[in-house]
Amino acid sequence: MNNYEMQQEAEQFLKTYYTETGAPAEKLEERMKEVISDIKAFGTYTQTYDEIVYGVKLAWRNSNRCIGRLFWERIDVADARQAATEEEVFEFLFSHLKNAFNQGRIKPYITIFPAVSAKEETVKVWNHQLLRYAGYDSGEGIIGDSDSLEFTRICEKLGWQGKGTDFDILPLVIQIGDQPPVWRSIPEALIPEIPMEHPEYKAVADLHLKWYAIPIIADMRLEIGGLHYVSAPFNGWYMGTEIGARNFADEHRYNLLPKMAEIMGLETKHASNLWQDRALIELNEMVLHSFKKQGVSIVDHHTAAAQFRIFEKQEAKAEREVTGKWTWLIPPVSPATTHVWHQPYSNELKKPNFFYQDKAYQEMKGCPFHR
Amino acid sequence: MNNYEMQQEAEQFLKTYYTETGAPAEKLEERMKEVISDIKAFGTYTQTYDEIVYGVKLAWRNSNRCIGRLFWERIDVADARQAATEEEVFEFLFSHLKNAFNQGRIKPYITIFPAVSAKEETVKVWNHQLLRYAGYDSGEGIIGDSDSLEFTRICEKLGWQGKGTDFDILPLVIQIGDQPPVWRSIPEALIPEIPMEHPEYKAVADLHLKWYAIPIIADMRLEIGGLHYVSAPFNGWYMGTEIGARNFADEHRYNLLPKMAEIMGLETKHASNLWQDRALIELNEMVLHSFKKQGVSIVDHHTAAAQFRIFEKQEAKAEREVTGKWTWLIPPVSPATTHVWHQPYSNELKKPNFFYQDKAYQEMKGCPFHR
Ligand code: HEM
Ligand code: HEM
Repeated sequence: MNNYEMQQEAEQFLKTYYTETGAPAEKLEERMKEVISDIKAFGTYTQTYDEIVYGVKLAWRNSNRCIGRLFWERIDVADARQAATEEEVFEFLFSHLKNAFNQGRIKPYITIFPAVSAKEETVKVWNHQLLRYAGYDSGEGIIGDSDSLEFTRICEKLGWQGKGTDFDILPLVIQIGDQPPVWRSIPEALIPEIPMEHPEYKAVADLHLKWYAIPIIADMRLEIGGLHYVSAPFNGWYMGTEIGARNFADEHRYNLLPKMAEIMGLETKHASNLWQDRALIELNEMVLHSFKKQGVSIVDHHTAAAQFRIFEKQEAKAEREVTGKWTWLIPPVSPATTHVWHQPYSNELKKPNFFYQDKAYQEMKGCPFHR
Repeated sequence: MNNYEMQQEAEQFLKTYYTETGAPAEKLEERMKEVISDIKAFGTYTQTYDEIVYGVKLAWRNSNRCIGRLFWERIDVADARQAATEEEVFEFLFSHLKNAFNQGRIKPYITIFPAVSAKEETVKVWNHQLLRYAGYDSGEGIIGDSDSLEFTRICEKLGWQGKGTDFDILPLVIQIGDQPPVWRSIPEALIPEIPMEHPEYKAVADLHLKWYAIPIIADMRLEIGGLHYVSAPFNGWYMGTEIGARNFADEHRYNLLPKMAEIMGLETKHASNLWQDRALIELNEMVLHSFKKQGVSIVDHHTAAAQFRIFEKQEAKAEREVTGKWTWLIPPVSPATTHVWHQPYSNELKKPNFFYQDKAYQEMKGCPFHR
């Protein structure tokens, strides 16, 4: 991004921020001048904490794939822009885990590491999610989460070793500037996990399934007013189907539909008896029930859709168009029972927003220490 | 469409037809010359029966929203291009109903009425589907199928009167050229309907639900080689979810989820107990079970997706790209359990194909006899 583009982006963001928060016009102008002169002088600028906080909220509000946006104004922002050492980065990540979990009443939370700049070293978090299970290709099938196969191999190359269970929490891997990546195991006490039980099918407990309590996406780039925060892990609470209908149900993930059907005593020879659909619902029941039993925040897909509908109404009232990506917003269980199914959404991209970016470790082929 | 465009379309279609069916190159050239000279002389041309049959198959194969395309080569084509009188048109429609039902072993079937031409009068079928239930706005809620409200009012204006039940089969309404539309009730014997029962929840039978056996879309335009067949009703057999997850389940249609949940004894206060999802599955079970019990063809969404996967493989083998519309191809029940969910499809439009067209009766505001 060149200075001109950054200036454009900054101006647009500041305008939105000052207008939506009802600041006087002079204040906007003053700040605009300051920012423009900084960009001209240094090729970048520094956002105030308040600007970042509002930028994060806008980025969430603009997240077209997110059904949880009713709560866009309620997110805690940890300012980690001063984090410069590995120690500091790990500390911020650990404290994110603790604060976001909040003893079960999960808080939407984001930790902002330094924006990319020519001068300072970039802080990179290599994990896809801060909490995530390792996946191993045993030769006779996958152990753990197949979604983590590549990253698990990388962790192993870096010297980490998992226990080889289906639920080994991966270490945190970070990298500062061009230094080699370093990893650290997450202290047990900071790993909230939910053991899976089913209110009716008691045998489910014997499967010893569990899932971590918070989905903390760590590999997306947050862009606010022309600044690129390439490490800005964020979380909400789970929608049950993410675990019950995808992580546990997908054939290429934990593939639990056949097991659940067996526990339910369903005949699984003929797809036409809908055993997959029945087992799918009980997996989802299991997830919702287990989180609730542990007093940990979670939302079912119907309630989430209803909340999203309120968000849509709120936005209409504020005379803002809700953009959305239909294919992501519909839940993977009974989607046509939600209002989302029955209307189109414009997938127009607005900024601030969260973006996919290349994996930090794709650059690393072969040994990480010999590049 | 001008002559030049028609010629282009005709050439492209004939090329595909003759090539795919392995005809010798001279035959294609000969036919091409004939068609071009006809278009130049008359502004149109007449397709051979074999050309139409292959054109229909291609139109089906190119139907991006259809998951039933494995069977694209198996469809019976009734040639109704000579139909000129109302009597003849009704006869063709009645015989479509009979042949397509085929005593329960439903046949993919299409009846082709004359293509649009400057000279001959256009035959228009006004119905959305040949079999469809009326919908009445009683003032205190809808009786019947809300999807038919407008067309039902039109039928009433034309002099038809329904019994006022939830399942009144609408009359066939046709129109020849500029003549006023005429309607005819479908003889009882030609209306195959499936009474709904549930293998486990016997009380379902007391709801006296039923659905017609064949979805015969009558309001789409079939385009083959530049010719526009604006009346070409076609059918396959049902995929269960069309009835169980949409017609019966949608809140604005028959809205049966609460009733089903009641029969199942589910608590319906909290969406988080997934009562809607459970009721949805039993509605779908009911539909599949009832069709099977009556010996009438139907396919569940898992089997349909598996068949679609075979179609995709067949097409890959033939070195043709499968186009598709993801948002329509995913089933509305447990969509992520099918392979369709997990891959993108290009929604590129290929011809021949079926197209939406303006409703025949949109032109008619006020009384149909005073235009
Ligand atoms: C508060 C509770 C929240 C719920 C229930 C929720 C729900 C969801 C769901 C179900 C998805 C789709 C996930 C998938 O299918 O993989 C999603 C995606 C997303 N959400 Fe939210 N969300 C919440 C909070 C947040 C927060 C706090 C942010 C950012 C500040 C956010 C930003 C996003 C983004 C960027 C995506 C797209 C992720 C991707 O493309 O992989 N969400 N959300
Ligand atoms: C043989 C069994 C068939 C099955 C199981 C099947 C299945 C389906 C399904 C489930 C849909 C989506 C319907 C909806 O959501 O409203 C659909 C759409 C469609 N199918 Fe098929 N189909 C079959 C045969 C046919 C035939 C014979 C044709 C034409 C020759 C056809 C052409 C289409 C078209 C054009 C659509 C889109 C309709 C629209 O946009 O409203 N299908 N099909």
